[in-house]
Amino acid sequence: MSTKRKADDRGPLKADCLWRDVFNHVTSRWGFLILIALADGPMRFYVLRNRVEGISEKMLSQTLKSLMRHGLISRHVQDSIPPQVTYALTDMGHEIAERLDSVSNWIGDHVAEIARMQTQFDQGPN
Amino acid sequence: MSTKRKADDRGPLKADCLWRDVFNHVTSRWGFLILIALADGPMRFYVLRNRVEGISEKMLSQTLKSLMRHGLISRHVQDSIPPQVTYALTDMGHEIAERLDSVSNWIGDHVAEIARMQTQFDQGPN
Repeated sequence: MSTKRKADDRGPLKADCLWRDVFNHVTSRWGFLILIALADGPMRFYVLRNRVEGISEKMLSQTLKSLMRHGLISRHVQDSIPPQVTYALTDMGHEIAERLDSVSNWIGDHVAEIARMQTQFDQGPN
Repeated sequence: MSTKRKADDRGPLKADCLWRDVFNHVTSRWGFLILIALADGPMRFYVLRNRVEGISEKMLSQTLKSLMRHGLISRHVQDSIPPQVTYALTDMGHEIAERLDSVSNWIGDHVAEIARMQTQFDQGPN
């Protein structure tokens, strides 16, 4: 019984629940990177596209929509000619971006060590 | 110039670097979930497969190998008949799993709020 309760507590390990669904969107390759990029402040679409290297406009557009739907990003239209559209983290977006940043920074701090492990693994017996 | 330095600091936003490569493996849907599952302690292959609902044996096997190659998971063979194989987080694995857990727990704490945002978004004008 305790194992079951424990498994229920760890939401994303269970399939077919909203937790897993949100998890998959937030931690999708592009979702993760867009949230981290926007932690620097609101950005226009093309600025964001250039920051997140390798993302296509279609994928950026789709991922922004999905993150807006999850309440993590908001879209602001400035009443100018032509209208300027910017994307920004919401309060919830800031909270999760902070946590994703901590994952990303940890990786950055350990890249050399991980590269060493990879070389060791590739040289050793499989 | 300061913008460029800033962009270089945020490693995973740049394509074609090891940071992004590690990032993609660690934050792959299954990599993320396997690391969180193993935070509870060493596990045998089939126990892990049952914990991480929805993962296929092939995908589990591939992802474990990739995480081992990155030095985040170790494989232990106990000299018994039949030999028992368990997988465990390494010290580096524990460090990153802790950070991923914080992301996952945040999502768990905000699932209801996110569901409300989704309903609102779906009802509003696109």
